[in-house]
Amino acid sequence: MAVGKCEFPQMHAVAGIKLGTACAGIKQTERDDLLLIEMAEGASCAAVFTQNAFCAAPVLVAREHLAMQPRYLLINSGNANAGTGEQGLLDAHHSCTAVAQLGEKSAEQVMPFSTGVIGEALPIAKIVAALPETQANLMEDNWHKAAHAIMTTDTFAKGYSKVVEIEGHTLTITGMSKGAGMIQPNMATMLGFVATDANISQSLLQQCLAAAVEQSFNRITVDGDTSTNDACVLMASGKSTLPEMTAESAALPVFQQAIQDACMHLAEAIIRDGEGATKLIKINVQQAQNEAEAVQVAKTIAHSPLVKTAFFASDPNWGRILAAVGRSGVERLDVEQISIYLDDVCIVEKGGRATSYTEAAGQKVMDKEEITVTVVLGRGEVGQQVLTCDFSYDYVRINAEYRT
Amino acid sequence: MAVGKCEFPQMHAVAGIKLGTACAGIKQTERDDLLLIEMAEGASCAAVFTQNAFCAAPVLVAREHLAMQPRYLLINSGNANAGTGEQGLLDAHHSCTAVAQLGEKSAEQVMPFSTGVIGEALPIAKIVAALPETQANLMEDNWHKAAHAIMTTDTFAKGYSKVVEIEGHTLTITGMSKGAGMIQPNMATMLGFVATDANISQSLLQQCLAAAVEQSFNRITVDGDTSTNDACVLMASGKSTLPEMTAESAALPVFQQAIQDACMHLAEAIIRDGEGATKLIKINVQQAQNEAEAVQVAKTIAHSPLVKTAFFASDPNWGRILAAVGRSGVERLDVEQISIYLDDVCIVEKGGRATSYTEAAGQKVMDKEEITVTVVLGRGEVGQQVLTCDFSYDYVRINAEYRT
Repeated sequence: MAVGKCEFPQMHAVAGIKLGTACAGIKQTERDDLLLIEMAEGASCAAVFTQNAFCAAPVLVAREHLAMQPRYLLINSGNANAGTGEQGLLDAHHSCTAVAQLGEKSAEQVMPFSTGVIGEALPIAKIVAALPETQANLMEDNWHKAAHAIMTTDTFAKGYSKVVEIEGHTLTITGMSKGAGMIQPNMATMLGFVATDANISQSLLQQCLAAAVEQSFNRITVDGDTSTNDACVLMASGKSTLPEMTAESAALPVFQQAIQDACMHLAEAIIRDGEGATKLIKINVQQAQNEAEAVQVAKTIAHSPLVKTAFFASDPNWGRILAAVGRSGVERLDVEQISIYLDDVCIVEKGGRATSYTEAAGQKVMDKEEITVTVVLGRGEVGQQVLTCDFSYDYVRINAEYRT
Repeated sequence: MAVGKCEFPQMHAVAGIKLGTACAGIKQTERDDLLLIEMAEGASCAAVFTQNAFCAAPVLVAREHLAMQPRYLLINSGNANAGTGEQGLLDAHHSCTAVAQLGEKSAEQVMPFSTGVIGEALPIAKIVAALPETQANLMEDNWHKAAHAIMTTDTFAKGYSKVVEIEGHTLTITGMSKGAGMIQPNMATMLGFVATDANISQSLLQQCLAAAVEQSFNRITVDGDTSTNDACVLMASGKSTLPEMTAESAALPVFQQAIQDACMHLAEAIIRDGEGATKLIKINVQQAQNEAEAVQVAKTIAHSPLVKTAFFASDPNWGRILAAVGRSGVERLDVEQISIYLDDVCIVEKGGRATSYTEAAGQKVMDKEEITVTVVLGRGEVGQQVLTCDFSYDYVRINAEYRT
């Protein structure tokens, strides 16, 4: 049911970053569900995590271990190890210890990640048993298998890979993400892992990641539900010939943009695979007074079940978009200044139906698979874009049947 | 598809309040869609309106006319006269003038209300043509027809009627509401009309209504979408033998509670008729620091598509409730203090799955048609309740097909 082309790209290996998968049989036994990522000595690692107050045990542990120069990431799908209390924390620590023993590192150098059903005990014995296989499979050229191993309700594996040239040196950026439901990331996405061979300090890498995530993963929503397990990691192995970047480097803005492009691509892939999605909707709010109110208006539209079902029905029911803008909570909103467009068709001007609008023109846009809604607020200079998908029978089916 | 018993009650006439209906053929020609309510001379009238910035033309006009001692309410279903710009305002004023001419009052004494599809021109000629019939039909004992005339996607007419005794005098309270979708009233509901024969000043009546609505219509949500046309009106004809109430009257708190009971009943009826609803969910947040955060947590749960689809599936997927509490945005939420119950079954304690919880016990509650979710925050003394319904295939079907 994914929207548009979702082919898995050719993934360029990143020197110094190895990946190994195995089937631990956590939820099913048909495919790999465990992934170990090993970073070369001296690599930097940045990460952002969910802001959900009920964050999962692995998030608590990974957040703590981020400061300890991590060398391993351990990711399992099929079980979120969330809402699992004291035992969940013990299990997350246990998995780190097991990885550390294999790799002769300390447990604090392992960051654990889990994704899947909430509230069931992590089958830690199965995970520990499968670890040696993941280690045996560690290879730099293993992103395809890795991206499949972290999937849950995803219908396709999500990858991005690009070799950029900066000041005569090549830099590789390769990443993957997963997620299709419980998606309204807040400071991070469900799970995203991006690697590069850049030379960069941890603190600068963390700044790059935070800025990129804010404009990518934090601008998408499937259902408004922020997961307990969201995390996005950026690894930099330092193996590129490009000299180490500092805050003053001319290369830094180029690198920053390249990381943001990677995050945006991976974030968009999540929306294309939104649970039950048949359409990709870009909601573009312009002329806001600030970023916060632009995002507020865009997300109110993106979360409206009435707007989302109208898109599913390809119904140009623009009144629902207008009503969502009106209830978005922006203070002193002057509806007389507002215009709304479906692609390039003006549907609302001066707060009412545009005189030039025809149902036929609206229908033509609504029949497309990818649609941009542009809301011009007429009160400032700031624009922001949020990506979402429509709301279909299949969303209900997928989430009504998820645990059965 | 309505939840539970939704029989229309026996409606006691309210002296001094007459209702007349007609079929104007606004959207369909099968049933009455136009209602005129006439208040006796000297009646007080209070009203609250939607906070949506894009409020409909009739809301703008009714809000203005509220101060002019209104004698008539004119309500049409089938067309919201919202998003209709300058022409919509002209049409709303036109309808007031037409009523005023019939009744030999001024146009400012008429409050117009519209509900139905957004963004289409109000068929004002049809309305004006049907007005004489509504006037000819004016009767005190006409609530049954009136409640049907204001329906849109409602599957049953919603009424409430009670005769209360205060200080040896009888007071009648009779009201009706409509609404099934685009329901997250903010200061008012889709449409609610309550009448009483109490003697009470407009300002005191307005206070009573605002307080009652805050704890009733403002505590329900179907889909989180606040309509452009929400309005709730309370009329007091002054025909009761009970002497006029003042702010000091011992009778006032009794009256206030009776009005709140009426509003609560009518609000609950809207949720029982929520679009596609198969279950009525009461979300009860206790031990909050203040009312605002209690409502914030309750509404986050009530709006979660994942929680709502789990209820539809009768799946005790409590992890979704926990995740919604965690993302509700309450600052410094200590998850260790939180307990969550499905009816009387404890599902979460100290932030994790309750040790006493069994899937069988959770399933038993989820199989019911009416379920109470109780969230104990453990950080204060304040409790609040929000009512919602589940999210079914039929919600998608109804809203995908609405205009076709």
